[in-house]
Amino acid sequence: MPKPPDPARRSDRSRRAILDAALALVGEVGYNRLTVEAIAARAGVGKQTIYRWWPSKAAVLLDASLALSGDAGAGSGWTGFPDTGDLAADLKYVLRATVDEFNDEKYEAPARALTAAGAADPELGARFTERVLEPQLALYEARLRTARDAGQLAPDTDLRLTVEMLLGPLTYRWLLRTAPLTHAYTDAVVDGVLAGVAKVTAG
Amino acid sequence: MPKPPDPARRSDRSRRAILDAALALVGEVGYNRLTVEAIAARAGVGKQTIYRWWPSKAAVLLDASLALSGDAGAGSGWTGFPDTGDLAADLKYVLRATVDEFNDEKYEAPARALTAAGAADPELGARFTERVLEPQLALYEARLRTARDAGQLAPDTDLRLTVEMLLGPLTYRWLLRTAPLTHAYTDAVVDGVLAGVAKVTAG
Repeated sequence: MPKPPDPARRSDRSRRAILDAALALVGEVGYNRLTVEAIAARAGVGKQTIYRWWPSKAAVLLDASLALSGDAGAGSGWTGFPDTGDLAADLKYVLRATVDEFNDEKYEAPARALTAAGAADPELGARFTERVLEPQLALYEARLRTARDAGQLAPDTDLRLTVEMLLGPLTYRWLLRTAPLTHAYTDAVVDGVLAGVAKVTAG
Repeated sequence: MPKPPDPARRSDRSRRAILDAALALVGEVGYNRLTVEAIAARAGVGKQTIYRWWPSKAAVLLDASLALSGDAGAGSGWTGFPDTGDLAADLKYVLRATVDEFNDEKYEAPARALTAAGAADPELGARFTERVLEPQLALYEARLRTARDAGQLAPDTDLRLTVEMLLGPLTYRWLLRTAPLTHAYTDAVVDGVLAGVAKVTAG
């Protein structure tokens, strides 16, 4: 006897199709030209299906970004910030994975479109930072806190400042395209942030 | 006997009015909704006057950004990167001035609109980076080179990397609005980049 269609599973499929369509389209046309109509057409659903779950294209994109971050984590087998006891190695591992994502068109195009749109639009930017970015920064902070507690960082280390010193140069080179993003670059940033670039001179 | 009108001076006035109008408008409506027509109307000139000097709104905005950077430098009495012999003090001075600019709506709004538009549009971004950003980065590099030559930085210091470690965190906090931009923040970045955040432990 054939099973009846499962409405929950159909919903899941539609939801996923909508998020995928939003990510593909925002990479192709940018945030400003993205419309709920176009997302619906690409996903093969009615516009009302989207509006039943999300109030706006911004809301769709925020959920799509969260799904994308989740996929990236799952794809790399990443279940949390690594803690091998070697802080430099763990930071390099995670930043190399981020470089790989930024060099992968599938992740890069929507991430760039959203980041640029958030930079230009304070309301969208605040929601993006709160929902997508801050949870990621919290993972870095937790790993740095463990290192600080273990005496591997100076006791008065400002953890948030350190996170921004690690992610700032990567984001700068990514958004402003001053040079290619490579593992060598993020490795050097980690070493520079931990050890400093000034010559240690005898007092 | 009244002097005849001076066409060169009138040209200068029109040119300046066009650049000012472009800066004001891009801050108000963003890059995507900016039009040459609107710039002409705000500047009180005909559209053809703009097209005589610039091929596109992007070209107008690039020149406007260069004029703005020039004004900021002139306004602060800045005639070059300071070199007092104290690298940390000189870097803090320049980064504090940059924080002040980013906290001034007049400079901030067009800079943000242009940076966001350049992040989203590779062609515009490349021109912005080449014409506006790179000349500024070169000033930082030159100051760091002097310090490296004087033995104040490790001999193998990567100057470009160091510049991006200084400007990356500032740009990150500015564009992503993770926290307010303050002098204390950029001071701490300078100290962190020069000395590192890791605890020096006896081998």
